[in-house]
Amino acid sequence: MPPLNAVIRLVSSLVTAAAVCFALPAQAEDSAPQKVLIDDEGFSLMHMMLINSPQIDVVGVTSVTGNWWAPRGAAMQLRGLELMGRTDVPVAQGAVYPLMNTEKATERWEALYGKLTWKGAWMKQWVEPTQQSTPPYYGPNDLSNLPWGAPSTKVTPQAAAVFMIEMVHKYPGQITIVEGGPMTNLALAQRLDPEFASLAKGLIYMGGSFNPHRVRDDRSAVEFAREFANSPRREFNIRLDPEAASIVSRAPWKQITVIPVDPSTATQLTRKLLDRAAKGAKPEVGKAIAGFEAGFPLWDEIVAAVLLDPSIVTEAEDLYVDYDAAFGATYGDTLSWREHYQPGLGEQKARVVLSIDPRKLDEIIVKSVAAK
Amino acid sequence: MPPLNAVIRLVSSLVTAAAVCFALPAQAEDSAPQKVLIDDEGFSLMHMMLINSPQIDVVGVTSVTGNWWAPRGAAMQLRGLELMGRTDVPVAQGAVYPLMNTEKATERWEALYGKLTWKGAWMKQWVEPTQQSTPPYYGPNDLSNLPWGAPSTKVTPQAAAVFMIEMVHKYPGQITIVEGGPMTNLALAQRLDPEFASLAKGLIYMGGSFNPHRVRDDRSAVEFAREFANSPRREFNIRLDPEAASIVSRAPWKQITVIPVDPSTATQLTRKLLDRAAKGAKPEVGKAIAGFEAGFPLWDEIVAAVLLDPSIVTEAEDLYVDYDAAFGATYGDTLSWREHYQPGLGEQKARVVLSIDPRKLDEIIVKSVAAK
Repeated sequence: MPPLNAVIRLVSSLVTAAAVCFALPAQAEDSAPQKVLIDDEGFSLMHMMLINSPQIDVVGVTSVTGNWWAPRGAAMQLRGLELMGRTDVPVAQGAVYPLMNTEKATERWEALYGKLTWKGAWMKQWVEPTQQSTPPYYGPNDLSNLPWGAPSTKVTPQAAAVFMIEMVHKYPGQITIVEGGPMTNLALAQRLDPEFASLAKGLIYMGGSFNPHRVRDDRSAVEFAREFANSPRREFNIRLDPEAASIVSRAPWKQITVIPVDPSTATQLTRKLLDRAAKGAKPEVGKAIAGFEAGFPLWDEIVAAVLLDPSIVTEAEDLYVDYDAAFGATYGDTLSWREHYQPGLGEQKARVVLSIDPRKLDEIIVKSVAAK
Repeated sequence: MPPLNAVIRLVSSLVTAAAVCFALPAQAEDSAPQKVLIDDEGFSLMHMMLINSPQIDVVGVTSVTGNWWAPRGAAMQLRGLELMGRTDVPVAQGAVYPLMNTEKATERWEALYGKLTWKGAWMKQWVEPTQQSTPPYYGPNDLSNLPWGAPSTKVTPQAAAVFMIEMVHKYPGQITIVEGGPMTNLALAQRLDPEFASLAKGLIYMGGSFNPHRVRDDRSAVEFAREFANSPRREFNIRLDPEAASIVSRAPWKQITVIPVDPSTATQLTRKLLDRAAKGAKPEVGKAIAGFEAGFPLWDEIVAAVLLDPSIVTEAEDLYVDYDAAFGATYGDTLSWREHYQPGLGEQKARVVLSIDPRKLDEIIVKSVAAK
């Protein structure tokens, strides 16, 4: 019989293991590929990771306005799938405008409540000198200067929200919605069809901010800390369309996994990582990867990595989550409650990932985009 | 000639020292006692530390509704000064009610936005089982069960706000206002007399919350972390009267020092600390100290300690600070901006203390309350 303290240690590590397991979206244990629909503003490493993985069956890719306008995002997605030789994956264009938020209103908001660090498609300049480039400012339908040229394939006839609804009805309980941008399409889908959320297997999204702290010491990390140091509850994807985020957070999903800013502060898309990933990928894809700008925290890539290998999660918590949709100083800020404190207005309990293993993330990225 | 890296280390430590010096309220260097007016809900170790220190000349003590109602606070202050043999210090009773916030409105707010952890004078029970006692619920004018009995001395005829205005006119540029509770009196004084803030030497207050993290592992620390884990920008003093806090933060002070929740997470009013402090104090005062409830973070005591020995500060930052006065999910939340991001609506630049040396704090407390 083992001594009592060894038993306690064993029980304790089982409890820890159970806590981590509970953090896993269940699909990791299935043998059939996990059906996934990716909604995001463009075409990033996250897309490549999921589309290239034999564990994942991407049933569609949709665009939404965020860092870029949705039409530009859809063109990048079509072209990205062409580079990957995966034109079998349908692309649907998403909502061009957030539900309520506008570029003009954002300017007035800034005059009352202070300057935003990042404004995505509405970004004209950084407030302070910043190492990362400022993306060129385009109009909503401007498709000039696409990074990999114009696609020859076309989007589906349906808008993204309608396409999503069709997909969850076609594969009820089987599709995990992966959200890497603002939630405009998801909110539209939920209001078009009240069954939308409950027909999905679950939702995993990059968005929100709980209590992030800077982990890395390099210049990029110091500059990105500007985004949360004085606004720990603000995150761009949610802030661009707060009303949509609140609608989605109150929808009846079977399971929600949140990847907020918090775990990203330990990560970085370094030049070395890009070179490693590019080297292992198919030549056309590798060229695209090598062309990505280095220096950003890995936001959406954590979403893909958690789907591919949930053991990457080192800290997570179950919380009720909603977003502030009132047009005041904290428009779009993350609202969260532990059990007993929540108002009970439909906000759902979500699994919030607070930290991950950044070295494991790099390995998952390199491995998942490698030529199979 | 020293090697270059030694020079760099020296320069680096001088820069650090300069940054810390800049954090000091300037009075530490004066030889004459620093004139101070203390506004707070009751009579705490903070009062004892300042009133007993030869470095400090307390020109008045005023009460405000916070953890207790203002009339109760004034009675405790009169009695506390009697115990200390300092009935020469005048006491003025402050505002009984916050500017806009009410107990009833707080209940409705909680139904919409979730339960508050601490509600001060309006507290009836903890949401979860909690080690700290729940203070008995009193009406606004109930003076029963005062901790040290009823005082025989009386408050000044003027209300606290009027008394404060008189004092800054009597000693222009000389008085540091020490705020340990909600800012109702300060806001009233500023609106009664637009010169109020600019006639003070400066303001130092316990209030606000920037990005606190739990530091200690004991049960009390774990329980107090409930207050900020899902609301990192909420703090009770400000949350009780957000409109007052915004008025005060936009007033033209010569200098503002903020002691938010952040530095308090490394501190605790332990039984051992209380016993040490009680043992060194005059018998009557020691008895009162020994009767304080242990387990709380040291909030207001940091304010007194920073005045007595600014070298206690280990991290501080200059930020523009305001508070959210809109009655929504983030009513009373701290708003802050680095230079270039602030809206410029009157919000002042403040020195925000983010961490302190907790062992030094204990020593300052014990030393400052010791019988002289």
